[in-house]
Amino acid sequence: MLRILVLGAAAGGGFPQWNCNCGACRKARAGDADAVSSHQASVAVSRDGEHWFVLNAAPDLRQQINDTPALHPKHGLRGSPIAGVVVTNGDVDAVAGLLNLREGTPFSVYGHERVLRVLRDNSIFNVLDRELVPRRELPLGRAVPLLLADGKPSGLTIEAFAVPGKVALYLEDPAKKGYGSEPGDTVGLHIREDESGDSFFFISSCAHMTPDIAARLQGASLVFFDGTLWADDEMIKAGMGSKTGARMGHMSMSGSEGTIAAFRDLNVARKVFVHINNSNPALLSDSPERRELEAQGWEVGVAGMEITVPDTGVRVAATAGRAHAAGGHARATGGRAEARIGITVRQTRR
Amino acid sequence: MLRILVLGAAAGGGFPQWNCNCGACRKARAGDADAVSSHQASVAVSRDGEHWFVLNAAPDLRQQINDTPALHPKHGLRGSPIAGVVVTNGDVDAVAGLLNLREGTPFSVYGHERVLRVLRDNSIFNVLDRELVPRRELPLGRAVPLLLADGKPSGLTIEAFAVPGKVALYLEDPAKKGYGSEPGDTVGLHIREDESGDSFFFISSCAHMTPDIAARLQGASLVFFDGTLWADDEMIKAGMGSKTGARMGHMSMSGSEGTIAAFRDLNVARKVFVHINNSNPALLSDSPERRELEAQGWEVGVAGMEITVPDTGVRVAATAGRAHAAGGHARATGGRAEARIGITVRQTRR
Repeated sequence: MLRILVLGAAAGGGFPQWNCNCGACRKARAGDADAVSSHQASVAVSRDGEHWFVLNAAPDLRQQINDTPALHPKHGLRGSPIAGVVVTNGDVDAVAGLLNLREGTPFSVYGHERVLRVLRDNSIFNVLDRELVPRRELPLGRAVPLLLADGKPSGLTIEAFAVPGKVALYLEDPAKKGYGSEPGDTVGLHIREDESGDSFFFISSCAHMTPDIAARLQGASLVFFDGTLWADDEMIKAGMGSKTGARMGHMSMSGSEGTIAAFRDLNVARKVFVHINNSNPALLSDSPERRELEAQGWEVGVAGMEITVPDTGVRVAATAGRAHAAGGHARATGGRAEARIGITVRQTRR
Repeated sequence: MLRILVLGAAAGGGFPQWNCNCGACRKARAGDADAVSSHQASVAVSRDGEHWFVLNAAPDLRQQINDTPALHPKHGLRGSPIAGVVVTNGDVDAVAGLLNLREGTPFSVYGHERVLRVLRDNSIFNVLDRELVPRRELPLGRAVPLLLADGKPSGLTIEAFAVPGKVALYLEDPAKKGYGSEPGDTVGLHIREDESGDSFFFISSCAHMTPDIAARLQGASLVFFDGTLWADDEMIKAGMGSKTGARMGHMSMSGSEGTIAAFRDLNVARKVFVHINNSNPALLSDSPERRELEAQGWEVGVAGMEITVPDTGVRVAATAGRAHAAGGHARATGGRAEARIGITVRQTRR
């Protein structure tokens, strides 16, 4: 069985975003139960509940660990249940959190060579001693074992695959095609438990659906997917920026080319949006857009959400990163209950 | 008048530290009122309460902004009261927080050329567009104006001065003297309001007291000072590491060469320790070490602490970064009251 904990579901900048005064961010700051504050997108996965792998190192990772008892050290004076961190691209919201994991505890960093090169080119990441924190390359399209901190197999394997995307913002080269983007700059992940074959996908950035990705996802038990925007031009219309979703490397939830439409025939059992921008109205649990995506069988990720594969029911706990982030909201489809929850309420249904 | 808000007072790694299972970190995770969780050391300063300068960009900066209403955007759709960020060294706990300030809002980054070079050498900091976020050099020993985001004078000036210290951990070169450290790698700051002449000092790292520093601090209204360790060998004795404070570039609170002794004749009105390591017993408000430093006229910084220059009394609010960080504690000397406070309690005494 796989246990997956959502550590955050917001896009780069988080929710609320430090410099954003939009209605949604104001609501989040005010503690509105329909606008739950969220760290940047990341999930942790374990098969035994003792050793965990974190997918994407959000800048919020120190706080995400603080908020997640499963990730607190349990044994000895120093140590961590975190055996590895997998980074899916070189953007700040996927790699900056590595800087929180200094202080001499061993684990592994997994990433595609294009992203590992970014870490190599930025000396600040040398704060993680390479002797203690080896960097392990994820080739495209080949499953590799995830290792425990002592180098032994964890019983999980991971396969990275190229998804349409974009090189990290700070590495864009306007003179080059696709701003210098190459395959491997953005990857999707398929995590599988060797013994049972249980698996799920984590794709926090994806510019458009391809036949290859569709074939991979067909019939999946669980997919976390890029939920940056509701509509491609929503940031422009809101006056928040000049870029479309497509320009930023993200497909939108809605529309004929959108994610909801693209998943309609994929027969995925559980579909959870992560990497949701503060401009996306579906972030608000009382919005028509939220109702629409839920009616289409989608969920919106929230910190503290716990999902198992195989699915044993709903398990949600909103861990409040801030004292006034007092409400969480989850709606599960397919006969599961609708839960509206406070700081530590936990609902389990089998 | 200067208003100063403490955003965090812990040393690198914060309190609790992600991989630390010591008694103090366990207490902090459990919400013990005598072991108040703390972000990494940073303060914000303003003369008008509208425009703020942040001293050191801790990795926790997104959360620190969330926890601090004065730093929330107030006007328009996008914007921030943060007009500038001053970085005093190149270590992760002083610069990584800059990565949280992406998303296209103008402000200035101030630092010594040695530290600005670190930002230049690490392309990830280009996520802050240099057109919007200029980097302004702080020469040693010369006061320069702090500018508002529109380039106008803020009415504050800042002077950086060299303090004994060390190059950033990830840039240490064992083959070189002092691991390759040079003047400017670590600076102290003197912030002054032009009109009134009110001023204070911020020195979050200092390896030992020098006659130059002592002369600068003599008679100061307020000094924030490096409180990393209580005793030089405490991490070794606790089994937490192999380095002394001196090796890490920090003087200790106690002992004949320590900070408390060094300040005894400096006639500083208000002395606040920041950058306090989780190994330092003075972090616990019920410890004998805390009682001793308080008896010597020192305070321990805590997030939410507000201090004015000139001093109008005690103003403390513990903003709980985490739901269970429910207690704050401040003891002020010199006729001020002792306050033991909850999440939002605020005490003002004139």
